[in-house]
Amino acid sequence: MADRKKGLLMVFTGNGKGKTTAALGLTFRALGHGEKVCFIQFIKGSWKYGELEAAKRFDDLLDFHVMGRGFTWKSDDLEKDIAVARQGWEFAGKIIAENRYDLIVLDELTYLATYKMIDEQEIVDVLTHRNPSQHIVVTGRGAGDRLIQAADLVTEMKEIKHPYKQGIKAQKGIEF
Amino acid sequence: MADRKKGLLMVFTGNGKGKTTAALGLTFRALGHGEKVCFIQFIKGSWKYGELEAAKRFDDLLDFHVMGRGFTWKSDDLEKDIAVARQGWEFAGKIIAENRYDLIVLDELTYLATYKMIDEQEIVDVLTHRNPSQHIVVTGRGAGDRLIQAADLVTEMKEIKHPYKQGIKAQKGIEF
Repeated sequence: MADRKKGLLMVFTGNGKGKTTAALGLTFRALGHGEKVCFIQFIKGSWKYGELEAAKRFDDLLDFHVMGRGFTWKSDDLEKDIAVARQGWEFAGKIIAENRYDLIVLDELTYLATYKMIDEQEIVDVLTHRNPSQHIVVTGRGAGDRLIQAADLVTEMKEIKHPYKQGIKAQKGIEF
Repeated sequence: MADRKKGLLMVFTGNGKGKTTAALGLTFRALGHGEKVCFIQFIKGSWKYGELEAAKRFDDLLDFHVMGRGFTWKSDDLEKDIAVARQGWEFAGKIIAENRYDLIVLDELTYLATYKMIDEQEIVDVLTHRNPSQHIVVTGRGAGDRLIQAADLVTEMKEIKHPYKQGIKAQKGIEF
């Protein structure tokens, strides 16, 4: 780990495109500095294989984990969803506590709080009690007030124009 | 170049952090799909060496160019600034016309229009008359109405909270 005084807690939220993509950009920037990165994806999506392929060129520095099981968050089996969310969050907590990474991305973590699977305060507590040298990025819509309060940097990605609403299909290599 | 019917014109604008970072994320996602990417930076900044190091692992697919000469856009030599901006924009136009890339990032291009160095309509004309298979990403504050009108996707990165305003210094590997 690089020597550092203060890690940032960064939040990318809002209904626009670019949240996960910005986290991915930060990931590659950090990798470029030789930093160790752990990218934890809380919602599995088939559109993310571009990153996985790109990540292979950094397997000395980057660890990538997918939690959950392809949630739609409309499952009929709420209890199972909550158990899987809990398991994912506990894994993330372990990673944070171990303090082995310079940057930890918790991609789409906000949904766990939005859907009341994990209490927002519990999330904030774990994030704020981390080793302070670690950078954390949280992405997802609807970041709660307590998370925003605790964060050092918050950007709202606001949708101004969306291609799919204009009848343009998702594009390989670009899909958000 | 991959076979593709419709390239997207994407704009990341607004006063918040994450615009260039999202473009960088898209870049790496595209690279992960084996696509060819040209990243043209219109404002040189010493904080971008993380990308440059990361880019080295993709030198088979990614070309990176820095235009300008470290503009502050507060130069006393406006004529020289305009000449350099014009030169940079003409280079970008050539790259677009050659149609050799799947994705072209025009990082901080909006400033050329904001500072009246290049007419916004000229920019929009070149972008909309590209070979339609090419994806283009434009970043920068204050994207003009005509650019937004022409774009397929526009996200405004809105600053909710900024670390430097809270007295936290820029961090290696994270600086935006």
